[in-house]
Formats: sequence, structure tokens, C-alpha cells
Amino acid sequence: MALVVQKFGGSSVADPDRIRHVAKLVTREYDRGNQVVVVVSAMGKTTDKLLELAHQITDNPDPREIDMLISTGEQISIAMLAIAIQSMGYPAKSFTGPQVGIITDNAHRKAKIVHINDEKIRAELEKGRIVIVAGFQGMTMDNEITTLGRGGSDTTAVALAAALKADVCDIYTDVDGVYTADPRIVPNARKLERISYDEMLELASLGAKVLHSRSVEFAKNYNVPIHVRSSFVDVPGTMVVKEVKEMEDIVVSGVAYNRNEAKISILGVPDRPGIAAEVFGALGAKNIVVDMIIQNVGANGLNDISFTVSKEDLAQALEVAREVAQRIGAKDVVSDSKIAKVSVVGVGMKSHANVAGTMFRALAKNGINIEMISTSEIKISCVIREEDVDKAVQAIHEEFELSEAKNA
Amino acid sequence: MALVVQKFGGSSVADPDRIRHVAKLVTREYDRGNQVVVVVSAMGKTTDKLLELAHQITDNPDPREIDMLISTGEQISIAMLAIAIQSMGYPAKSFTGPQVGIITDNAHRKAKIVHINDEKIRAELEKGRIVIVAGFQGMTMDNEITTLGRGGSDTTAVALAAALKADVCDIYTDVDGVYTADPRIVPNARKLERISYDEMLELASLGAKVLHSRSVEFAKNYNVPIHVRSSFVDVPGTMVVKEVKEMEDIVVSGVAYNRNEAKISILGVPDRPGIAAEVFGALGAKNIVVDMIIQNVGANGLNDISFTVSKEDLAQALEVAREVAQRIGAKDVVSDSKIAKVSVVGVGMKSHANVAGTMFRALAKNGINIEMISTSEIKISCVIREEDVDKAVQAIHEEFELSEAKNA
Repeated sequence: MALVVQKFGGSSVADPDRIRHVAKLVTREYDRGNQVVVVVSAMGKTTDKLLELAHQITDNPDPREIDMLISTGEQISIAMLAIAIQSMGYPAKSFTGPQVGIITDNAHRKAKIVHINDEKIRAELEKGRIVIVAGFQGMTMDNEITTLGRGGSDTTAVALAAALKADVCDIYTDVDGVYTADPRIVPNARKLERISYDEMLELASLGAKVLHSRSVEFAKNYNVPIHVRSSFVDVPGTMVVKEVKEMEDIVVSGVAYNRNEAKISILGVPDRPGIAAEVFGALGAKNIVVDMIIQNVGANGLNDISFTVSKEDLAQALEVAREVAQRIGAKDVVSDSKIAKVSVVGVGMKSHANVAGTMFRALAKNGINIEMISTSEIKISCVIREEDVDKAVQAIHEEFELSEAKNA
Repeated sequence: MALVVQKFGGSSVADPDRIRHVAKLVTREYDRGNQVVVVVSAMGKTTDKLLELAHQITDNPDPREIDMLISTGEQISIAMLAIAIQSMGYPAKSFTGPQVGIITDNAHRKAKIVHINDEKIRAELEKGRIVIVAGFQGMTMDNEITTLGRGGSDTTAVALAAALKADVCDIYTDVDGVYTADPRIVPNARKLERISYDEMLELASLGAKVLHSRSVEFAKNYNVPIHVRSSFVDVPGTMVVKEVKEMEDIVVSGVAYNRNEAKISILGVPDRPGIAAEVFGALGAKNIVVDMIIQNVGANGLNDISFTVSKEDLAQALEVAREVAQRIGAKDVVSDSKIAKVSVVGVGMKSHANVAGTMFRALAKNGINIEMISTSEIKISCVIREEDVDKAVQAIHEEFELSEAKNA
């Protein structure tokens, strides 16, 4: 008998019909003789609608009261799912985050889970019940209701799986796994049988929307095997697991892209210590996340500093950059929102040379210009023109022969 | 400094604009230097919509899961009201029933409050905060969410007022008090300055929809003064209070009516012991509430038994009555849904004779036939034709000179 944690997102429980479908996936697992804990998000667009309601009162609602408000969304889902499962003749019981002892810190709207009291759930599982838990929510030590921020239900599922030492955490989604590239761009992209936490983290932060990074980090820390799988088709998905020796034989696991970046360049920056700290300190103070940074030493002692931010932050980042540029005596600030980023990810890079060369060759062969480069231990990213994205992803996928399964 | 509990129903918080209006009524009380605890119901038709959602899954949802589902309605209201009050610059904090320690029994969907842990609320009031509490909901000793059934938010408000020894429990509603008769029927009906719990109970069960009987019973048991008042006009309403000596000078406080009754007569019933028990036992077994009962001893040892039920229960009650009639050998069963009940209520009846006579005279003078009579210590009710209701209420109101204030 295995203990399985299943997680279903908002679109999977958007209406009574879909909830009935989820009830079937849950009871199928239960019928296999397993203990089942289910985590659900709020139905469809419920959270957005509740936020909209609050914003009809004020633009700056108290985060504590917003948590009180939006945590109702998941509470509705769990009751509905329990009713659906019971109507099929199975024993089920729903619980809010606070009821099952999901204890968080006090940071409303972005709380972190600090402890899970697993007794309640264990007792219910012992009684043969399917346990349904509201995702996204928890309670502080002072009995205050909190929410976990974006991707919170994934985190709830992984945290429960860790606390209960579950055999697997099934994340049901509208894709059937993690692919070597976006199948809409690369028709012969291959579904990965398994992938390491670190690779998944790189892919998640690179724009693959399957799993939220926080939940992957949590899974990595507690070594929880995640199974990314489809709510619609009953086929094996992708296992996200701890890195093992054999994974290093696979140099590149996948190609990712992100069209949601923009580039800002500060030109003619005086070359003296502390300049970079001043630029990026000012951006950080405004909570603007900077992705890639390059600095070229130019002629006559002047530098150019370029960096990328997400498109939503461009306007504010430009304002900050112009302010700083004036203060430090830079010559000009220019921006470019027609860029995109393509990346290759793979743990095998650690032990294989010339991955970068292969990637650059693929781009060069197709006449694609590289504007910026950044690397990590298991990732290489290039900024290119936005209109070249599809061609670039296809070329890289082809060059690394990713459609052919290696010894995985 | 007084401690005031205020209660606002679903129509008072139906949308953000109305919630803003409620916020003004709350802060007005706070500005008077009082400690304020506010109880609110779910916004508008929220509860009905949630029930409808559950019924899209099954006709027989588990009451525990329904409580999990519908208790979200009040949680949304309290957060919205807190946000509205805070946006006006006042300190406010919302709490669910479980969070403030409203402990109930285990009877889901009709739970009874068994204990209130008032520490949390007192601590918040001491900090100068306006405390907003979700009506209608509580928690069992096992941490299970419960709801209190129809009129539950009134009960929450009165119970909190009792636990906190509040100076008054203000029930805000869409009428500005309790009148000697329905002002739509009797234009010169007079607003009562005060009324006893027992009179209010009789009026409540007679169809005056201002307060739910359970909350009045609770107020009576714990001697909580209730102030029934308008959300729209700032004038004194009606105080519902403990009976005092002077009230007995007022023979009749008000005239009530109820058009929602129907009469069933079982004719030619053999006169032997146990027949009444058989008839009303069978109705009770089907959860049909019988209001008035009369039995006439007829000629040749046969009786006629007549009783009234609410119109919704008529069809089912008729079925039961026919079944029993056949079993006991009665001659016939007839029904009449074109009836209504008019009643006079007043604690002074206990010490004044001939109230019944005055009432019957008023009806007789206007050619209104009395079909059934029932009395209690502080009430006399007559069943009449439905079309005579307005005339009857006006005639009785006139006969007892209720538009003129006596020494109240």
C-alpha cells in the first residue's frame, strides 16, 4: 500500500462536471489500494474574482484580510470535491489548511510553511478515508489564516507529501509531462521520463509553467518524488526526482524559452568601483528582479552595462535606470523589448565540455545573432531577437538530437 | 463606555456599496466612544448560490461538507467589512466563528452554541479595535466547522452579547422597529418603544419576520437587551427586553397575522381513546409542524378533528391524514388553504379579563366569521377567511386603540 498525494489546480475543478472528473481520478487511486491525500486549488477564477471584490473597496487592502477573503476559494473546492467523492460511494472528508495543522510564518499573502502537524491526516487515513486538503492556505501559531502566494497549492501538496513521507506527489495538470522543448514549437519534442530537481528548477524559472519553483525547491529539500501528469490522459508523466549518477550521461535535458524579458542598457558608464552596486541596488530596492547582466569595458574608460528584466517591470526599471544614470554621469539609457531568451538545461553539462559551443553553432548555422550570454552549472542562456525564438528552439533541439531518447 | 454588539443581515452587505454603508454605521458607534463587536451574514444570496452548487453534484450532500461549503459566505463578508472599515482609517479585524471560540454541538447545519470563549474578542477590544465576527458559524470541540441554521447570525449576535455582557445587541434590519401591526395594513400602526421577550417570541412565531425565535429565546435566557433598528434611518427602534411590572398595564402590544396556514379536517372520527395520538403522531413522524388543533364532539359518538399546518406542508399532511383516516375508520378528510390567522399578543392579558371578548367583538362587528380559536397565556389567535385578513387586523387594532400610546 502506497501513500499518494494528488494535487489538482483551479482549471481542473472549475465547475461541478470537472470536479466529478477529479473525483474519478481520486477514487481510481484509492481503488488501487493506496492511501490518498488530495490537495485542490480554488475553482477556476474564484481567487481573482474575490480580489476584484476587495479592490472595489480600496486599492490597498490589508494582506491579513485578503488572506481571510481569498482562503474561502479553496474551502469551497474541498467541500465540493468531498461531496462528489461521497456521492460515488467512497469515504472522504475535507479539511482546511488550519484544520490539518499547516503552520506558517506571519507573512500574509506569501507565507512560508514552517511546520505540518500530520496527526490529523494520519488518523483519517487510518480510518480508510480519502483526505481532501485545501491548498494555498495555512495558519500562524496565533491562529491567523494565511495564504502561500503564487503556486501555493503545489507547495501545499509537496509539503504534505514530505510531512507524510508519501511515496509520490502527483501533480495533475493540463500537459502530460515535461518535454525536451515546447511541443507547440518542436513537434517531435520528447516527453522526459524523469528529470532532476535542479533541472526542473531551471526549466521552471525559464518559463516552463508546469510547476512553481517554490514547490520544486521544497521537493528537493525533502526529497519528495513529484510526478507531473495529465488530468485528461492516463499515461505516465515525468518524474521529478533526486539527481542520480546516470543522469550525468544526458548532457542536455531540454530547451526552454522566455519571451517575457526586456533589455535595458546604460551606455557610457564611468569605470569606477561601486557603480554596479549602485545600479542594481536601486533596482532591488524597488523589488525589480534582474535576470541577466553583462558589462563591457569600452574604449576611453567608459563601460556599457546591459541587463534584462521581465516585460511588466520594464517601465519602472527604465525610470530607475535613468535616475541612476544621471546621478553617476552615464551618457544614455536605451531599452529593447523585442528580445527573448533561449536556454539549454542539463545536469550532464557539469561533466561534458563544449555544450556552449554546440548551442552557439546551432544558432550561427541559422543566422541567429546572440546579444547576451549567461551560464550556470547546468544551464546556458542566450538573448536573441524575439522573432527568432521558434527557429532557435528548433535548431538547438535538433543539434543536441533531443528527440532521440538517450540512456535515461 | 458601552459595549455594543451590532448585527447586519445579508441584504445589508449585499454589495461593496452597502458594505461601505454598514462601515459607516459601525464607525459611528465607535466614534461615540463605545467598544463595538459586529456580526455579519453572508453577502446577499451567497448561501443559496453555494447550496445550489452542491446540489449540482448530488441531492443529498453530507451536512458536514455543506457546513464547510456555506460557512465561506460569512468569511467573505467579514473580510470585506474589515477592509471597508480600515479604508476609512479605523482599526478593525475580522474573525471566523471558530477563531473567536464559538463552540457548538455536533449537529451540522443546525448546531447549537454550547460555549463562547470570550478572551480573544476582549483582548482585541482592549487594543481599541473594532471586532468583526462571522455570523451563523461555529466549531465543535473536535475542530469541525458547523453552522447554526436559519436565523443563525441573529443567534451569533445575541450569544456574543450574552458572553461579553454587552450593554445592548443592535439588530439592524430593513424596518425601523416592531409595530403594533403591519404598517402596510394599518397605516396608523405605532412603533413600540419596547416589548418583552415573550411577546416578541409570539410575534416572531406568528409571522413577524423581524427576529428569529431562536435568537429571542437566547436573549431571554441570558437577559440580553435587543434593539431592533433600521440600517437606513437613524432613529430609535424597539427594545426587546425582560418583562417588567409596568408592561402588564399594556393589555395588548400588537396584532399579528399569518397567511401561510392551511386547515385540514378529519370528519366522522370514532370517539375512542388514542385517536388524537395516532393522527398527530403520524404527522410528527413526517416532521410536519401542526399549529392549531380543535376537536368537536359531534352527534352519534363521532368527532371532527381540525388542525392547521403551513401551506408548504399541506400536500404531505393531507396524504398522511387520509392514510390515518382510513386506518381509524373516519368518514372523510377535507382541506382548506384559503384561511389565515390573526392574533393579539400582550403580557397584560395575564392580569386583564375579557381580551378575548374584545377581539371577538371587533371581528363580529365587521362580519368576520371565526373558524378556529386558540389561546396561550399572552396570545389569542383566530382562524378566519384569508380575504378578511386586512379588515380583521384593522378592526382589532382599532378596537384595542393600539395607535394611541398607553403608559409604556
